[in-house]
Amino acid sequence: MSNKVKIAIDAMSGDNSPRKIIDGIDISLKSNTNNFFYLYGQREILEQHILKKTSLNNHYEIIDTKDVIQDDESPLTATKKGKDSSMWKAIESLKEKKSDISLSAGNTGALLIMSRLLLNTIDGISKPALAALWPNSKDMSIVLDLGANIECNEKNLTDFASMGSALYKSLFNIDVPKIALLNIGSEEHKGNDILKKTFSILKEKNQKNYNFGGYIEPNHIMDGNVDVIITDGFTGNIALKTAEGTANFILKNLRKSLNKFSILTSYMSLKKFKEKLDPRKYNGAIFLGLESPVVKSHGSTDAVGFANSIDVCSKIVNGNLINKIKSNLINVD
Amino acid sequence: MSNKVKIAIDAMSGDNSPRKIIDGIDISLKSNTNNFFYLYGQREILEQHILKKTSLNNHYEIIDTKDVIQDDESPLTATKKGKDSSMWKAIESLKEKKSDISLSAGNTGALLIMSRLLLNTIDGISKPALAALWPNSKDMSIVLDLGANIECNEKNLTDFASMGSALYKSLFNIDVPKIALLNIGSEEHKGNDILKKTFSILKEKNQKNYNFGGYIEPNHIMDGNVDVIITDGFTGNIALKTAEGTANFILKNLRKSLNKFSILTSYMSLKKFKEKLDPRKYNGAIFLGLESPVVKSHGSTDAVGFANSIDVCSKIVNGNLINKIKSNLINVD
Repeated sequence: MSNKVKIAIDAMSGDNSPRKIIDGIDISLKSNTNNFFYLYGQREILEQHILKKTSLNNHYEIIDTKDVIQDDESPLTATKKGKDSSMWKAIESLKEKKSDISLSAGNTGALLIMSRLLLNTIDGISKPALAALWPNSKDMSIVLDLGANIECNEKNLTDFASMGSALYKSLFNIDVPKIALLNIGSEEHKGNDILKKTFSILKEKNQKNYNFGGYIEPNHIMDGNVDVIITDGFTGNIALKTAEGTANFILKNLRKSLNKFSILTSYMSLKKFKEKLDPRKYNGAIFLGLESPVVKSHGSTDAVGFANSIDVCSKIVNGNLINKIKSNLINVD
Repeated sequence: MSNKVKIAIDAMSGDNSPRKIIDGIDISLKSNTNNFFYLYGQREILEQHILKKTSLNNHYEIIDTKDVIQDDESPLTATKKGKDSSMWKAIESLKEKKSDISLSAGNTGALLIMSRLLLNTIDGISKPALAALWPNSKDMSIVLDLGANIECNEKNLTDFASMGSALYKSLFNIDVPKIALLNIGSEEHKGNDILKKTFSILKEKNQKNYNFGGYIEPNHIMDGNVDVIITDGFTGNIALKTAEGTANFILKNLRKSLNKFSILTSYMSLKKFKEKLDPRKYNGAIFLGLESPVVKSHGSTDAVGFANSIDVCSKIVNGNLINKIKSNLINVD
């Protein structure tokens, strides 16, 4: 087991958990048996769900926990009274070096606060950030911060560049990712003071670790010409939610417009279209900058989406993310 | 002519101008003969295009101007050397009260700078803002600011609320529009200081002129439950361009997935779908807060889109936008 990736799973949080968690692990074990799962949750319930999943044999250990953090709980209250929750205990196992990475489909706010309380920040990193995969015309890129830090200075944004490019390298095995700063114009003089300062730091300290492509406007995120897109958590969250709302609006209108006949005749085409845009493929936001990475699966995803998050966890650990972040660090005076 | 809406048209700017401009006027006159057009541009060229459009007779006057502002010119340079351009002269006609409203499909940056140079701000308004129509599940809403002001304080945002609700009333004939502040969460404590201050001003001074619905997250813009969405120009521009990029990405993937057979069999459904999302329907950003309104048509729209912008101009003048803004003003201490 020593070479296996040890994943601490909050098995109780998210819609339809723990069923989708156990099913997701089952799916992931079909293509990768090199993970070991510490399952945090109520032992009896978990054992019932695992009963028929023989594929899990020898790949898991249950750690009995009492509480479950609810999605609608205030993150602060949840943290205060959640010290015996599956979420807390799973993150705590990182502190104790029992596991390499932690994965939860629960309350994002509570997960961020618990992670910050339990884990140290990597030396030299000012603020951890939330990163996610974003689909594009070629494959996918990484965008961060998506909401962990509402206000960011040039040091924070520069750190996001170091962390984002380290993550991209770990996940996609590429040596020098292309990074860009999200802005409302592409000319060097555009944007606020913090963006301009970050621009000159990234331009001057343009290291061997990434290729700085200047500013990128949000209408070009999905062109696929940039691997890592850097922004503050307010702007990143605005972009993420705008994209989500727009996609939902268009797909809803498409469904409304199609009659039964056209759905039948276009079945294969529409299936291909839906697969390309399947949000389960991009499932998993990564909380970066702490001594160990914490991964957040979407609460409403299913077993396939959860299996994709497990795959992300496995790649992050095998890709030596934390070491890559450390060697990527940029010194901002 | 005294009761007609007098529209000053920059007839030379934008792709395929002046052809699409003249064709757009021709289209608009089919449903509304109550507009009079002052056409700013090169007389000879304009006369050639008007030659066969008898519908325009008695509805226009050409004012000969020499220069045309190009789309790729720097706004400052364009403004400096563009005093005899069709764009400048059209806006100048507002200052002279010769026309009620001005419409251009040209360089947005130059249009904003020229408007600010030539026109006074409405008494009590701190900064003008750029507003646009945004499609939603019910019909459409108004979002502002979309990029005129990168940094905004609570006074600016409060003014945007006054101006946006006045615009909504003018365009859609509704007495008390529902307004909301764009933010990354819906709870009252979310967001930065300026948003929180604006929230309490709009909540306290909740006037008879609008109904304040609190914060709205960008994934709900298109739900259609809010009429006017208020944000600073940086955030608004990020949201606008993210929506544009996402829509293009999805529609491109849809086209790629459909084969010839499914396009044929789904022709009517797809046509209905495209009509609902037709960007020409939402064409026209409105520069609000100056003594006269200035409307920006998308540079790449066609004659139908331009005709829609003319319709927006006509509604704005008939709806007494400027007076409505004045009576909407909120006193911020």
